[in-house]
Amino acid sequence: MRATIIHGAGDVRIETVPDPVILEPTDAIVRIVRACICGSDLHPFHNKPAGSDPRAIGHEFIGVVEDTGSAVRTVSRGDFVIAPFVWSDGTCEFCREGLFTSCLHGGDWGDENVGGGQGEATRVPQADGTLIPVPGITEDSELLPSLLTLSDVYGTGYHAAITAGVRPGETVVVIGDGAVGLLAVLSAKQLGAEKIILMGRHEARTNLGREFGATDVVSARGEEGIAQVRELSGGHGAHRVLEAVGFLPAYEQALGVVRPGGAISRVGVPQYVEAPAGRVLFRPNVTLTGGVAPVRKYIDTLLPLVLDGTVNPGRVFDMTVSIEDVPSGYVAMDERRALKVLVKP
Amino acid sequence: MRATIIHGAGDVRIETVPDPVILEPTDAIVRIVRACICGSDLHPFHNKPAGSDPRAIGHEFIGVVEDTGSAVRTVSRGDFVIAPFVWSDGTCEFCREGLFTSCLHGGDWGDENVGGGQGEATRVPQADGTLIPVPGITEDSELLPSLLTLSDVYGTGYHAAITAGVRPGETVVVIGDGAVGLLAVLSAKQLGAEKIILMGRHEARTNLGREFGATDVVSARGEEGIAQVRELSGGHGAHRVLEAVGFLPAYEQALGVVRPGGAISRVGVPQYVEAPAGRVLFRPNVTLTGGVAPVRKYIDTLLPLVLDGTVNPGRVFDMTVSIEDVPSGYVAMDERRALKVLVKP
Repeated sequence: MRATIIHGAGDVRIETVPDPVILEPTDAIVRIVRACICGSDLHPFHNKPAGSDPRAIGHEFIGVVEDTGSAVRTVSRGDFVIAPFVWSDGTCEFCREGLFTSCLHGGDWGDENVGGGQGEATRVPQADGTLIPVPGITEDSELLPSLLTLSDVYGTGYHAAITAGVRPGETVVVIGDGAVGLLAVLSAKQLGAEKIILMGRHEARTNLGREFGATDVVSARGEEGIAQVRELSGGHGAHRVLEAVGFLPAYEQALGVVRPGGAISRVGVPQYVEAPAGRVLFRPNVTLTGGVAPVRKYIDTLLPLVLDGTVNPGRVFDMTVSIEDVPSGYVAMDERRALKVLVKP
Repeated sequence: MRATIIHGAGDVRIETVPDPVILEPTDAIVRIVRACICGSDLHPFHNKPAGSDPRAIGHEFIGVVEDTGSAVRTVSRGDFVIAPFVWSDGTCEFCREGLFTSCLHGGDWGDENVGGGQGEATRVPQADGTLIPVPGITEDSELLPSLLTLSDVYGTGYHAAITAGVRPGETVVVIGDGAVGLLAVLSAKQLGAEKIILMGRHEARTNLGREFGATDVVSARGEEGIAQVRELSGGHGAHRVLEAVGFLPAYEQALGVVRPGGAISRVGVPQYVEAPAGRVLFRPNVTLTGGVAPVRKYIDTLLPLVLDGTVNPGRVFDMTVSIEDVPSGYVAMDERRALKVLVKP
């Protein structure tokens, strides 16, 4: 089968690899119907050292179960399924608490003997704990793009809003106009935020953000951006700041716009080790929260809204490529010509 | 009157200063009945630059109202009162939310024209918003030490436990065996923690910690301390970590013992600007919370428990000095010969 393999920075190739096979009784094989490229895939696209081991890439996909191991109970051949961006056993103490991203027996797509999402098919370890079947969906459904967002970006934006503690009537700032930021806007709106200030500078994206519920857009950054947000939020900043970028300046922006007693929730993977975290948080009682989103936990809440058309998070996709064109999709996202690229194997 | 003035590192003097007077109609004058020395007073005792302006010091006191300005409504001459460690108007948007430490019109004891707690009397700005009257208390009450802890250390320990989100049945680690740490133990116990691991190495203190509710004591620090705590907490660390020290190694200790999905609450004033705050928090979804405790908010909850004898937080005091001996009290705390020093003006 064909799959996307990353060899190093800027070096993404489509290669023929062995078809996946069942290795454990808890495995399934899923034929991938739709996948996509994540903003976080751009980090290895920028940084992966040349000469490091090639690795299957892609961690967001929906598909159809082709085969199951003897111990699999909750999905069967022919089921349409959503795969969260990590796999998990569903039974360990962290999974039982809903923290599937800290599963004691889980892992990442692209790990040894586990395929990536940007391919024709993959082995799925811990199929019962990982896959969510969605009855009634066919491969020509108009809902496919929105269902695909449940594997990562929608649940990640929702995680930001939930962990920040967004409550009705509050002011929320969202930093970043990528897919996660825009879906953090949608999530804040769902949780009843009254004023949602989106910080971003790409007009097509911030316009979609307005459709998702942003009441204000601030394109300025740094001190000027902070001043504008503070003016929009009554002078003291916002109760909740959802940071969906991951670079240090975005975190510093968050520190500048958060209100005393408020919270910063990060869902962009931090690209730094040390950061200002002393009295700048302590004096105003600002809480720093968020993290790698356990998106599986939110599917119960979000899937019904996708199925009944209440929300249409799939609007974040603005480019579609075949599997052979995945490398050009990386370039389009890297050059910010595409917001988010859908892959149709 | 006599008052404690800090001139620089290691240079605390008892001086005769003008008696405090009403300057604003919202002021009160309080004669101080008991005060104390705080672990955080040791920071200027170590660091205050020589030649900087001398400053009245002390921020924890209880006393009797001697005089009030014309606009004061909630306290009167003769009332016994508790003063929280910051003053606040009680009416601004932050005070209304209970975040008295971010009051828009508040400030610190020892500010210009405001006395410190370690003196015979002080001007109290914003008396209605600051002072909490305690009817029926006389100056010979045995409850004075415990009432005094409500001005800072008990409320600060409680803030750690509340903001960390301690729930019944959980495992809690408390880092630091100072007065705040020990009262964080008591607070965690009150909130139903099942296992409370106190990290500290002064046996007299950790013994008091056991009486307050610690189930285990770990005296080792660094990697060895982390290993012992993780073994005591089922291998994965504790749900809640209450950091009551403020130095960077204590924060790093907290990172080592917190469980994925858990929370670190800091109530020791951070003595650092930058700290590890990237993926070390993000990957395991660890929340960093806490801050300068708005202790006034907790007095409604904690005062009844002091008055009816349910708790005896005043046990943290193990040395009493007259006002003339306050400098020797600083030295005793600095040399760790005293846990917490009570001042009887």
